[in-house]
Order: sequence, then structure tokens, then C-alpha cells
Amino acid sequence: MEKTSDLVERMLAGDRLALARLITQVENRSDLVPQIMQRVHPRTGRAYTVGITGPPGAGKSTVVDQLTVRLRAEGRSVGIVAVDPSSPFTGGAVLGDRIRMQSHTLDPDVFIRSMATRGNLGGLARATGDVVKLLDAFGKEWVLVETVGVGQTELDIIRQADTIVVVLVPESGDSIQTMKAGLMEVADIFAVNKADRDGADSLVTEIKFMVHLHHVSPASSSEIDWEVPVLAVQAQHGIGIEELLTEIRRHRTTLESSGALAARRQARRRAELKAILTEEFLRQVSRRLEPEGDLAETVERVVAGELDPYSAAAGILGRLD
Amino acid sequence: MEKTSDLVERMLAGDRLALARLITQVENRSDLVPQIMQRVHPRTGRAYTVGITGPPGAGKSTVVDQLTVRLRAEGRSVGIVAVDPSSPFTGGAVLGDRIRMQSHTLDPDVFIRSMATRGNLGGLARATGDVVKLLDAFGKEWVLVETVGVGQTELDIIRQADTIVVVLVPESGDSIQTMKAGLMEVADIFAVNKADRDGADSLVTEIKFMVHLHHVSPASSSEIDWEVPVLAVQAQHGIGIEELLTEIRRHRTTLESSGALAARRQARRRAELKAILTEEFLRQVSRRLEPEGDLAETVERVVAGELDPYSAAAGILGRLD
Repeated sequence: MEKTSDLVERMLAGDRLALARLITQVENRSDLVPQIMQRVHPRTGRAYTVGITGPPGAGKSTVVDQLTVRLRAEGRSVGIVAVDPSSPFTGGAVLGDRIRMQSHTLDPDVFIRSMATRGNLGGLARATGDVVKLLDAFGKEWVLVETVGVGQTELDIIRQADTIVVVLVPESGDSIQTMKAGLMEVADIFAVNKADRDGADSLVTEIKFMVHLHHVSPASSSEIDWEVPVLAVQAQHGIGIEELLTEIRRHRTTLESSGALAARRQARRRAELKAILTEEFLRQVSRRLEPEGDLAETVERVVAGELDPYSAAAGILGRLD
Repeated sequence: MEKTSDLVERMLAGDRLALARLITQVENRSDLVPQIMQRVHPRTGRAYTVGITGPPGAGKSTVVDQLTVRLRAEGRSVGIVAVDPSSPFTGGAVLGDRIRMQSHTLDPDVFIRSMATRGNLGGLARATGDVVKLLDAFGKEWVLVETVGVGQTELDIIRQADTIVVVLVPESGDSIQTMKAGLMEVADIFAVNKADRDGADSLVTEIKFMVHLHHVSPASSSEIDWEVPVLAVQAQHGIGIEELLTEIRRHRTTLESSGALAARRQARRRAELKAILTEEFLRQVSRRLEPEGDLAETVERVVAGELDPYSAAAGILGRLD
């Protein structure tokens, strides 16, 4: 197998195949991940990351596709990461969405990668963050991260973006209401897609009202003065995408000029360190918990119900110290 | 403040106020949690836990309420834990649901507790598991755990049940489709609620088909031979609840007679130990990462972007060893 350092060198020199291989390593959380990310680190921090989230069927992929068209028309290079953490069963849906983006597959300045959960939800947010860094180091000026839904994993994924766009469509249903509420907290920009549908206008009005309430509330002490814009778009017809990109850039400028971008990224690095510490700790301790490991006996006593897990954990952590 | 040991003694002697106080400690993940759970441990393992999950608006609370009525009519004691991890914004919805259960609040053999996320999603599944154990130790014969949705946290919560009931309602929408797919994996029993609505029959047929495909698939190597039953219920009118309870008991008997219940609980204890180890590790390391801690300098270098987080994590774990 090729040496990791060579693979990283080739990637940094612009080799797409090397990039794809590194992404696979990162996605599988291989033992080489720390080594890869250490080498890549000095080349990161230049890309601007936009997260696009919302319920399934909202047309997120089409929005991503159209944003890519606009950015490419300006000569910008684009990386796309599409993540579906909800279930292995829905993996097919993402792949279906990908097909719509085939218009970009021959464009060497667009790099698209789908990531689905492989039963390892915990590591998915971590893996996504590392893939974003690889695309950043590879030289992509814009990285678009698309993800579905509003669970903890999805929030962990989307919070790694600099600007977060929430895409909604006019649709009833309690579950959408719940999602909307959850997404309120993370949205920097709302895009109401399929704006020609019945109910789109009232949805725009409703979200504007929610945003306004949220904005004036003294509890929402955001680091910048930014009232979340609510746009009506029809991504399939390219309508409203120019305005969306303008708002994304306005948000970027606001973050940059206020120093909030630097603050956000610093907070992200702090959270990242904790997540990696946890991942590495579990990786190390898991080996020792295996049947051949030195902690196996304690595990067996817990499994049999003889020992409570808190006492066991205290004992194990005492031995690790 | 009262000594923890006294509080536990009083709880084990049947004091509901002591139970409520201990639950609050557990919910807030106080430093006393290990001590509480160690003392409670010998008295656990007798309750049978039923998880009730499904999308918002499916009528889960009404199902829980009606199951409670039936169990109480048989003289069984019941503990109820209702968890809404989706968002702090929806906390109100759960409280609204609780009001419907007020018929039981004067019944000393029913204990109801709502839990909402307080910004600490990671600990919520752990906290729920511990609350179930407290109710178990308190002597509740049945513990019903109700939770919304299908994210990772919700799955972590619901997987702590012995039997899992998924409640659905006839409703269109892509997001429901996604949920259905995610819930397929965990359901031991499906209940289609509001079965008098349009579309209920076809939903029952559809789920039966999905269940059948899943059951015959060689990939689904379940530890027991159990084809997931799909019931039509109208919880609000008490229709189909008797049958639901019969199926829950049939599932319980199947698990018990095959030895699968013991195996499930052992697997759960193993997962629990890992979760507690992680929680305790993070609690310990977090203190050292604080500005006054001995690892603060490393953190600052990561936050400033000077040091990559993987190198930092390796360094920190090396020092902990």
C-alpha cells in the first residue's frame, strides 16, 4: 500500500484520486486518520464552508447544485459533501439525489462526495469535519455540506459550517413543525423552496415572524447583529439562487468584519478537540475491554449484573490514570 | 442537604418524594450519580421496560395512558418516563401531552416523569436509563418509556427497553417515510394509531409488507423467531389496546423463554459501561482542559489553529496513561 505521506503529498499537489483515497480512509476512521490530518493541517483554514440542511424532500440537493452552478460561473472551485445520517435504509435516497448533480461530475473544479452512516453514527460528524478539511487543503474555495434532518448527529455535522442555510418547503405535518423548531436555532439563512406551491407565502411569513421573535428576544445573545433572512426560492428553475448566494456572502462579510468568524472557528476547534479525545479514548479503552484485554474481567462482571457500571467505570479510569 | 444514602434508603422504602429527588439528581447528572446508582443497583432487574416511540403527533402519550389504565386494572404498578430530546423549543409539547395523563396523577401506584433536554443531549440517554433503574428499584413492575423521533439519541434511549412499540399514524410526507425506515430496525411491535382515519388500512398493509420483507431477509438474523405484529388501534377510544398489551406480553414471553431477554440485557449492560466510561472520562478530562487546568496550554494552541487536534489528543492521552 502507498505510504500515507506520499498520498497526502499527491493530494496537496492536486491529485483527485489521492484525495478520494484519503477521504475513504477518513470515512472509515482508519488508524491512519491522525497521521493524515496532522499532515493536512497546515494547509487548512482557507475554504469557506456552507451547510445546507432541512427535512427530506425539501430540495437541498437542487439548491446545492444551483449554488455550484453560480459559483463555477464565477470561476470558484467547489467541494460538496452530502451526508445522510438518518439510517442505513435511506442510503439509497442520497445516491438518487447525487444523480441530479451529475452535470458537475466532469468538471475538474467540482469534487462531490456522498457519505452515509455505516452503523457508526458517533464518528460521522467527526468524519465529515475531516473530509471538509481535506477538501479545504485540496484547495477548494467553497465547501458545501448537505445533510438531512435535525437529530444530534445532524446538528453536530452542520455546526461545522461557517454559514448555515436551512431549506424548507410548504408542507404540513407535526414532524415538520418539530424540525422547524429545532432548525430555528442553527439557521443563518432560511430558504423556502418550491415557492410556487400553495402555502409557500404563508410559510415565508410564518418563519419571518419566528425569526423576528427570536431576534428581538433578549435571550438570543448572538455574537453579531444578524436578522436571519428568509428567501423564497424555486431551485429547480434557478429562481432566487442568486439572492441566496448574495445573502450567504453578506453573512460571510458580517462574520469576517466583526471577528465572529474567527471566534466561531475557535469554538469549533475546541469542540473538535473534545470529540477527538473521546474518540481516541474509546478506541484505546475498547481494545482493553475486549475478551483478551486486561479489563475483560470487569466487563464480564458488569454484563452479568454483579457489578454496577459506575463502580466499574471508576475502577477502570483509576487504573488508566 | 440530606445524605444520599438516606435518600436512597427512603426511596427504597417507598417514599415518592425521595424518588423524585433522586431522579432530579440523575437528570442533572450531578456528581452524586455514581454513588446513587451503586446503591440502587442490587435492587434492579425486576421491572419490565416497554419503549413507545414514533413521530410527533402519533398519539404516543395516549397509547401510554391507555396501557397504564389496563395495567392498573390488573393491579400492576407502573412507572412512566416521557423524553423529548428533539429540541428545547418543543419542551412545551411534551408538557402539554403530560396533561392528558393527569387521570393517573392521584394514583400512588403510577409514577410519571417528563424529561426534556437541557442542552445536554449526550447525557440524556444515560439519564433516562438511570431513571428507569430508579423506577425499577422503587418497585414498579412495568416501566413505560416514551420518546419522539428517530435520531441517534432517541435510538439510544429506546434501545434500553425490553420491548419496543412503534406508533405511527396515516400521514403523508417524506420525513415520515424516513422515520418509518429508521424505526423498522428497532420495532418489536407496530401500532397504527387513529386507525379510523383515511389511509390507515393501506398503512397497515404497507408496514406488514415491509415487516415481512425484513423478516424473510437472510440479513436480519434476529436472536428470536418473531415476525413483528402490526396492529390497528384507536388509542383515544381505547380500541386495540387490549390486543397491544397481549402482543407486548407475547413478545416478553418469547424473549424470556428463549433466553433472549437475558442476552439483550447483557448487551445493554455492556453498552452502558462504555457510555458511562466515556461520560466519566470526559467529566475528568474536561476539568483539566479548563483555563486553570494543566492541559489548558494545549487547548489554546489547538483553538488558535497552531496545533492540529489529533496531535493534541495523542499528547493528552499519553499524559493521562
